[in-house]
Amino acid sequence: MEIKVLKSVLEANDVVAEQTRELLDENGVRMVNVMGGPGCGKTTLLERVIPKLGVRVAVIEGDIRGTHDAERVSRLGVKVIQINTEPFGGECHLEASAVRGAIGEIELDKVNVIFVENVGNLVCPAEFKIGDHLKVVMVSVSEGDDKPAKYPLMFRVSDVCVLSKSDLLSYVNFDEGKFKGDLAGVNFKMPVFKLSARTGEGVDEFVGWLRKKLSL
Amino acid sequence: MEIKVLKSVLEANDVVAEQTRELLDENGVRMVNVMGGPGCGKTTLLERVIPKLGVRVAVIEGDIRGTHDAERVSRLGVKVIQINTEPFGGECHLEASAVRGAIGEIELDKVNVIFVENVGNLVCPAEFKIGDHLKVVMVSVSEGDDKPAKYPLMFRVSDVCVLSKSDLLSYVNFDEGKFKGDLAGVNFKMPVFKLSARTGEGVDEFVGWLRKKLSL
Repeated sequence: MEIKVLKSVLEANDVVAEQTRELLDENGVRMVNVMGGPGCGKTTLLERVIPKLGVRVAVIEGDIRGTHDAERVSRLGVKVIQINTEPFGGECHLEASAVRGAIGEIELDKVNVIFVENVGNLVCPAEFKIGDHLKVVMVSVSEGDDKPAKYPLMFRVSDVCVLSKSDLLSYVNFDEGKFKGDLAGVNFKMPVFKLSARTGEGVDEFVGWLRKKLSL
Repeated sequence: MEIKVLKSVLEANDVVAEQTRELLDENGVRMVNVMGGPGCGKTTLLERVIPKLGVRVAVIEGDIRGTHDAERVSRLGVKVIQINTEPFGGECHLEASAVRGAIGEIELDKVNVIFVENVGNLVCPAEFKIGDHLKVVMVSVSEGDDKPAKYPLMFRVSDVCVLSKSDLLSYVNFDEGKFKGDLAGVNFKMPVFKLSARTGEGVDEFVGWLRKKLSL
């Protein structure tokens, strides 16, 4: 009998992520992993997108501590599960086992899509698979145009980039050409949706893409 | 003979940090650890503050990859050492040993202050001591007023908070009262400097405080 040796924390994590993905597929549920730095607008995007999707949604919220974002999202009338990483050493990302545990709290026959709002961080969430079908990386124009060059892994592993807070474009130094050029350097085919969750500009285009991509 | 057992990565890190601090003290050099999420304005703050300090400065830049920020800072005519964490697994923070190595590249009798620009992240840099004398946490108003509640450790371990991009205050939802209330909840005595490195508003006040605090 073959003995499988998991060589690292990451490899062990990947096994759980694979199992999660299988469980979701069996139940016809799609999972979307929303990643981005602190304050890039992940929760606000979910608040805007979920009501427009027109399908049954659950949300898993990842935070070091507290239920701030979970409370906001639960006002949409969707099921929300909060994962706090503080009891696990204040980890700066969600691991597959934590997400797997949260999924256990969701009745999978009652949802079509699970959104995971990862911990606010442009680094480690890119390294830990959780079993999602789609990875969204968000970056706000107020963070500057240098993020793809500085955090290449996050932009390489993600399927789509949301460039948020477009309503602030006139007030910040953000060179869209440079941003897209650097982005193409790490992930040539990545689609970019420039939007403002505050004003609603560009949100419908992103929702349309999401519906198509998730076959909703 | 007593055998010292280092119980964890963090404990081993703390020992190196202590040694670094002793080395700096022997040479009369002060080290400032600048932390904050991606794009909060750490590099821009250094560009503004360093020329106003009127002392000899060196800068250690921490990034996953690249020398983008280091190139910007080196235009000030100061010595800059770049630490890239990508060869070490793409770590999302600077560890004491990496900083100690960088300090070895600096002639300590020729500087008064070393600024360390940590990796853009509100989580793990708070957990890893590097041997600094002063910790600055930066958060921009465009990131939202909920950061002290969501990333309490970072605000608890830091000595001062820089609330950056104050020129964007009119264009974002940011409740200064809530921010300061939550901040007081995790670090009652923490001074806050609201400033805009872009317009220069509030920078002199912060520089004045820094000069006093570092006995320059």
